[in-house]
Amino acid sequence: MAVIDFDRGQRIGLDEAVLCAHKHPAQIEGILAQHDARGRSCLLTRLTTEQAASISNTWLQRLDYDATSRTAFFPAPAPSVGDPQVAIVSGGSSDAPVCGEAARTLAFHGVGSIRIDDVGVAGLWRVMDRLDDIREFPVVIVVAGMEGALFSVIAGLVGSFIIAVPTSVGYGVASAGELGLKAALASCAPGLVAVNIDNGYGSACAALRVLRLCGTSPRGQYGVKKASQSAA
Amino acid sequence: MAVIDFDRGQRIGLDEAVLCAHKHPAQIEGILAQHDARGRSCLLTRLTTEQAASISNTWLQRLDYDATSRTAFFPAPAPSVGDPQVAIVSGGSSDAPVCGEAARTLAFHGVGSIRIDDVGVAGLWRVMDRLDDIREFPVVIVVAGMEGALFSVIAGLVGSFIIAVPTSVGYGVASAGELGLKAALASCAPGLVAVNIDNGYGSACAALRVLRLCGTSPRGQYGVKKASQSAA
Amino acid sequence: MAVIDFDRGQRIGLDEAVLCAHKHPAQIEGILAQHDARGRSCLLTRLTTEQAASISNTWLQRLDYDATSRTAFFPAPAPSVGDPQVAIVSGGSSDAPVCGEAARTLAFHGVGSIRIDDVGVAGLWRVMDRLDDIREFPVVIVVAGMEGALFSVIAGLVGSFIIAVPTSVGYGVASAGELGLKAALASCAPGLVAVNIDNGYGSACAALRVLRLCGTSPRGQYGVKKASQSAA
Amino acid sequence: MAVIDFDRGQRIGLDEAVLCAHKHPAQIEGILAQHDARGRSCLLTRLTTEQAASISNTWLQRLDYDATSRTAFFPAPAPSVGDPQVAIVSGGSSDAPVCGEAARTLAFHGVGSIRIDDVGVAGLWRVMDRLDDIREFPVVIVVAGMEGALFSVIAGLVGSFIIAVPTSVGYGVASAGELGLKAALASCAPGLVAVNIDNGYGSACAALRVLRLCGTSPRGQYGVKKASQSAA
Amino acid sequence: MAVIDFDRGQRIGLDEAVLCAHKHPAQIEGILAQHDARGRSCLLTRLTTEQAASISNTWLQRLDYDATSRTAFFPAPAPSVGDPQVAIVSGGSSDAPVCGEAARTLAFHGVGSIRIDDVGVAGLWRVMDRLDDIREFPVVIVVAGMEGALFSVIAGLVGSFIIAVPTSVGYGVASAGELGLKAALASCAPGLVAVNIDNGYGSACAALRVLRLCGTSPRGQYGVKKASQSAA
Amino acid sequence: MAVIDFDRGQRIGLDEAVLCAHKHPAQIEGILAQHDARGRSCLLTRLTTEQAASISNTWLQRLDYDATSRTAFFPAPAPSVGDPQVAIVSGGSSDAPVCGEAARTLAFHGVGSIRIDDVGVAGLWRVMDRLDDIREFPVVIVVAGMEGALFSVIAGLVGSFIIAVPTSVGYGVASAGELGLKAALASCAPGLVAVNIDNGYGSACAALRVLRLCGTSPRGQYGVKKASQSAA
Amino acid sequence: MAVIDFDRGQRIGLDEAVLCAHKHPAQIEGILAQHDARGRSCLLTRLTTEQAASISNTWLQRLDYDATSRTAFFPAPAPSVGDPQVAIVSGGSSDAPVCGEAARTLAFHGVGSIRIDDVGVAGLWRVMDRLDDIREFPVVIVVAGMEGALFSVIAGLVGSFIIAVPTSVGYGVASAGELGLKAALASCAPGLVAVNIDNGYGSACAALRVLRLCGTSPRGQYGVKKASQSAA
Amino acid sequence: MAVIDFDRGQRIGLDEAVLCAHKHPAQIEGILAQHDARGRSCLLTRLTTEQAASISNTWLQRLDYDATSRTAFFPAPAPSVGDPQVAIVSGGSSDAPVCGEAARTLAFHGVGSIRIDDVGVAGLWRVMDRLDDIREFPVVIVVAGMEGALFSVIAGLVGSFIIAVPTSVGYGVASAGELGLKAALASCAPGLVAVNIDNGYGSACAALRVLRLCGTSPRGQYGVKKASQSAA
Repeated sequence: MAVIDFDRGQRIGLDEAVLCAHKHPAQIEGILAQHDARGRSCLLTRLTTEQAASISNTWLQRLDYDATSRTAFFPAPAPSVGDPQVAIVSGGSSDAPVCGEAARTLAFHGVGSIRIDDVGVAGLWRVMDRLDDIREFPVVIVVAGMEGALFSVIAGLVGSFIIAVPTSVGYGVASAGELGLKAALASCAPGLVAVNIDNGYGSACAALRVLRLCGTSPRGQYGVKKASQSAA
Repeated sequence: MAVIDFDRGQRIGLDEAVLCAHKHPAQIEGILAQHDARGRSCLLTRLTTEQAASISNTWLQRLDYDATSRTAFFPAPAPSVGDPQVAIVSGGSSDAPVCGEAARTLAFHGVGSIRIDDVGVAGLWRVMDRLDDIREFPVVIVVAGMEGALFSVIAGLVGSFIIAVPTSVGYGVASAGELGLKAALASCAPGLVAVNIDNGYGSACAALRVLRLCGTSPRGQYGVKKASQSAA
Repeated sequence: MAVIDFDRGQRIGLDEAVLCAHKHPAQIEGILAQHDARGRSCLLTRLTTEQAASISNTWLQRLDYDATSRTAFFPAPAPSVGDPQVAIVSGGSSDAPVCGEAARTLAFHGVGSIRIDDVGVAGLWRVMDRLDDIREFPVVIVVAGMEGALFSVIAGLVGSFIIAVPTSVGYGVASAGELGLKAALASCAPGLVAVNIDNGYGSACAALRVLRLCGTSPRGQYGVKKASQSAA
Repeated sequence: MAVIDFDRGQRIGLDEAVLCAHKHPAQIEGILAQHDARGRSCLLTRLTTEQAASISNTWLQRLDYDATSRTAFFPAPAPSVGDPQVAIVSGGSSDAPVCGEAARTLAFHGVGSIRIDDVGVAGLWRVMDRLDDIREFPVVIVVAGMEGALFSVIAGLVGSFIIAVPTSVGYGVASAGELGLKAALASCAPGLVAVNIDNGYGSACAALRVLRLCGTSPRGQYGVKKASQSAA
Repeated sequence: MAVIDFDRGQRIGLDEAVLCAHKHPAQIEGILAQHDARGRSCLLTRLTTEQAASISNTWLQRLDYDATSRTAFFPAPAPSVGDPQVAIVSGGSSDAPVCGEAARTLAFHGVGSIRIDDVGVAGLWRVMDRLDDIREFPVVIVVAGMEGALFSVIAGLVGSFIIAVPTSVGYGVASAGELGLKAALASCAPGLVAVNIDNGYGSACAALRVLRLCGTSPRGQYGVKKASQSAA
Repeated sequence: MAVIDFDRGQRIGLDEAVLCAHKHPAQIEGILAQHDARGRSCLLTRLTTEQAASISNTWLQRLDYDATSRTAFFPAPAPSVGDPQVAIVSGGSSDAPVCGEAARTLAFHGVGSIRIDDVGVAGLWRVMDRLDDIREFPVVIVVAGMEGALFSVIAGLVGSFIIAVPTSVGYGVASAGELGLKAALASCAPGLVAVNIDNGYGSACAALRVLRLCGTSPRGQYGVKKASQSAA
Repeated sequence: MAVIDFDRGQRIGLDEAVLCAHKHPAQIEGILAQHDARGRSCLLTRLTTEQAASISNTWLQRLDYDATSRTAFFPAPAPSVGDPQVAIVSGGSSDAPVCGEAARTLAFHGVGSIRIDDVGVAGLWRVMDRLDDIREFPVVIVVAGMEGALFSVIAGLVGSFIIAVPTSVGYGVASAGELGLKAALASCAPGLVAVNIDNGYGSACAALRVLRLCGTSPRGQYGVKKASQSAA
Repeated sequence: MAVIDFDRGQRIGLDEAVLCAHKHPAQIEGILAQHDARGRSCLLTRLTTEQAASISNTWLQRLDYDATSRTAFFPAPAPSVGDPQVAIVSGGSSDAPVCGEAARTLAFHGVGSIRIDDVGVAGLWRVMDRLDDIREFPVVIVVAGMEGALFSVIAGLVGSFIIAVPTSVGYGVASAGELGLKAALASCAPGLVAVNIDNGYGSACAALRVLRLCGTSPRGQYGVKKASQSAA
């Protein structure tokens, strides 16, 4: 029986998600049963349609499953979210699964987000047209494949907290996403941070850590001792 | 003559720093002169002792130079900082230059920080002893070389916003820092973000972006529109 | 006809195992027949369910096959084992095939083992809770994917002989297991050793070499000349 | 005695340059002597100040040497050039040696160029301000280190023929220039081409091949048979 | 709905192509519908036969689809082209898909091309026999896999503008095409440029940028200011 | 002041060593002073002759320094050791520094060792001649550079516990030691384990962990609970 | 229509083989037809069973196809060969396809060979037992996967001309064969040469080049001018 | 004292050479003394001018040292050689040290060679002009850096036995010689073999193995049993 880190939410404010890659249906069902027995909800990530189809119907109908992002909420329905606090910006339509994983992870924690898609740098006007929209959000998740030039362009123009998520989109020298990852890390724009390739889930968790600092996360305020003192 | 991005501070809240690597003394002096003419201050990074020694005395005596972190403030003296808002945690004494670069970059922007050094995972009690100290800070910069296990340990135990800075410390399979970088990116602890190898400057800039969101940065408050509305 | 190293057990105390990857059913059956003709038992590793299904029934029913670990004992039934002398500790449920390969290899040589699963570092309490259990065993095999922080944490806290087995679990920068391997090799915890990625078989063989030194292996005592002298 | 390809200019319109890296002073002097004996001029590249200092004075005073670009014309003085036909655009002041190598190679073939420096993407306004200047030139050589975002930005906005020259400027994941090279090759902007890292010489040669096609190279017009027919 | 860069043609003279890799049939159909609504044509690349088969018949019969090159013109029929201005030279028959992608991209923009196949360096006479044919063309696209020796041989013998397209053909050390790419970039023949592995589309776009410079592109003349002045 | 893990010896039976790479003389002296104040001894590794020369004489004369192995005992003189329990076998004379580091680390913990040098596989008789000597020892440390064939040869012939230490000796494809490391990990000989490149210290620590299991380490016996029970 | 290098045999003594990887059945049939029309025989390599099954029966029945080595002679039957002149030695049964490709390539040129299989280094006696057999042959092709220790062992003991063929057999750090390739190249045994991973065909061609030098190849004697003079 | 493989010459026909890289002067002198005591000659390779200068004069004056090739014969003078049997062909003047190492290794074994330098592919006529000269030799060593196109060109045109020696000459993607090595291994020309980067010594040893097969080596004839029978 899997040993689940049920106290993670209390400890660091982020519940453990169930990474379904490499897991058999029986393992996934066992984990759902543990959550069910404790009356706990959970988020499943990297749940392919093949895996979902092989889960027994009893469990499947209690999931809110989204095929594009390969995520599921247990139990259904999806949680309600507040006003959007995060902008998820992407370079092309192939980045949709990763954008979806980020958005659904935020939603699982009650945080809303908006999507600004298809603003790759080859047509720079597309991102320039949306700059004012992007600047409205305290946290911006930028999702891009290929050479990842979008990371530097946005980080150089927008003062929000910006998280780069490279995607494994591309071919030849760009395949597997390592190029975009390195582009984010070596960016000449200051204060840009990165998460692993295709890690929409991780980018959302980083956003949640930051939003809690400011007391704007629906799940309660972080005790920013020094900061609240100097604000007094 | 170098084309300096003097408006960067106004645009994204972070002044352009002068990366001195690959620059000749004459280029550095020219950049200082441009700042002097406009009455602007600046931060110099990656300024080796060899480079510092070759700068003319007129300029050198106007710098506040720190050899360990290879940084300088122009003009001297160093800016005053407020209460510490960032904890800089490191695995070993070889990480000191990178820790220093982060601390001095924060100081340049008026933000205080504390140092918690030598808490590598081989003696786990060292970091466990300091956990409560670390948890007090909204932002934690973790600096580590070798296999980078410290990143996962802290991110799994502390709910603050955590930035990993891998260092090029180690030998054999660990040389050049790529191992620690990948350890941070692949960490099983959620919401950990990373910057480039040895990039103390970048980690501080990321911290500054986040602190501004919460209105606790000395350089003024970021307009977090959606968040302030839902807080009302 | 395959040239089998039947004397290996006598020479170095470890029988040759049959690595079934890249082998056709006919090759596997031929090797079984050679063992059968000499009245010898053998261990088969990396025997996929597809391969097992294509072996003729005559041979298949004489195998003790375990699908998770992809191993088989010939002839069935499985050998009996003594008290557990090895702890097999793993980070997540995806590491199960490799843990199984290690446990079954030990069992083939008559050595018992226990499993301590799902104690990844993201929830550090899980491994801390089991430390006393782990410390009871002279040999500890640690199996972990992703960034491999578990290797350093255990090796820094437990004085037993510790073998790291990185697994090819993960995605992005962690894919293929090389990250965990390097983390084990570059660990700041002293005296940790590593075997190849996913090599559960090899970790068990290393454990067997060590257990024989102490005279606790069921297959007889190693002639530790200097040691037995100083023990006299 | 070196076997020089004296007919290269006649064959493909580009004279052989002398790559001085790995060459001893005596080898360089011998090559100069061969050119001198035939009354031929030549271009020397990668001639460090150390190498230049060790060449005998007789030869050195007949060179037009430029330390920044590490190039020399033989014999001095430098050739005269026509109106600028190539724009050399660079991201930062550290790219100056490569820009210089490109400009001097063009000059050796009689082609003028202009320099547009310090327009890195972190301050996007810098390149936007110069777009109209850049668009005036049929051929644009873009020189950039780090993550190479400048390549995509310019190639997406300018219809000229654009050659990317990645430089070995940067540290951590960007060191050695491979990141910028791959960024150019994987760019989402169409029709961008690349040359080797730091290969200012090669970028100029590519520009020369193109300029000759249009009949605007001072060294004569290329016979574009099919094209001139369809233009009739 | 995808955000299409419809102005790209006007901005840089090259229409946006639809890279179908990673796209679902519904996404492709949506993009076709957008073009249809505006009366615009478009080029589809990397459209596999599997993808083509899953597009609804209404749209499929309006495509001119070519399976070898995995490209389609929308709407059918294929555009008419002028006299050939580009030679596409390849090393072996396995390079055919990439050659086809280049030829069809040129054709989409109204530019004709010829194919010279199977002239790999192992039988050097094959390329020597065709040198005079190759020299007739202002632009030469060389497509080769394996060790890419063909790039250097042609670039050393032909003065045209030459674009290297490495292909992911080969095995062992040559697999994935990176070897051929590096061979092109490190070539000792001057002025050779490269595009990404398998990027037939990109090579054609580079050719189109160059042909426009000379005023020989059917889609109108580029304003080569300095050049036209010196030609006057 | 460095935070030293003084309890490591009690916790896992191995004292913390001082890795002097990347440390300034003042840092090293400070660490020595901390040990001196507590009356503790320590081992220094990777102490180059340059570093040793820059340590103040007061401290230096209290060190037992060995230049070949770059190690020092504090305080001098070197500890006395018992009968040799470990064989250190090497391929060539260039491996001497790593062999020395292993031998001195063992000696620091009171364990004797013998050296069997220059038995590389190119002259296979050399290692065959010494097999009986090697087999006498419970633990064998094999040190080899280049292609590391020595690891497989010994592990296939000797039943002792065998630790491979690849060295960064070689050139071309063998440079930096990664080839030998991988050869050890992928060895077809069962039960071979590896430590990091050039990590003589780590191999000795692994040996010490094993020797304690058998109760033959001078520093006391490990409590092998299960084993001693089944031996009863 | 493919451009076949029919004169290769006359030029360098080796006929062009048809590498079937990446080729469609129609392409293969076309090439066979060209050979048929000229009354020429040919060797097909890398012809998978899937490809063979899709060739039309008319052509297939004229092939002598061997599934293990994935080679075919056209036209059937296989050519007759002379006494064996090459020993093909392999480490394990997984190397059989590559051994077969080498043997069949030799046979196509009329040269006989013997096979010595399953003599991997883990059981060193296996290769020692066969040394005298191996030494009888002027040319030895050694085929091995994993860490490739067999290459060094044989090259250090046998004075024949030895060609290493690494195979893509193994997993973890050994996958894809690059480890064995580098082991051959970095071998401490002198005068060992290597061909590409899995390149049985290439190793046979190298053997044929050498055998012709000695006048022992059935296809006639190479004109070894200097040698025949000194032999006179 | 070093354990020298004095019987290697008798065993495989090639004496052990002394690789001086990583060796101290005292080690080198000790090895010379061992040879002197037995009246044996030896070849020293990779002996830098710095190392040579630090050897005591007594030994140095008994060496025939060549600085370019970094080799020495002990004792002086150099051995006499027969008619040239090997052609050493190189791409550029930077390849001279490797060519020299090959030539001197051949000379040590009494075999003569000729040098054909500076015939890189960028000027193809240079190698075409020398083809007939090259074809005269049974064995051809080709030495080239950068992209290594010379290997394929010669192996496609010359039927001799051809050994590729890639050199670590070049920059950017070509640095360290791995590109040229892979180009040789992946060459489309059949029967080409490779040795390690910069391994002039190894190429000569391979040549010597081959020459002995044909009975043309001055050190006696190899017993080619099968071959001499079929020649009878």
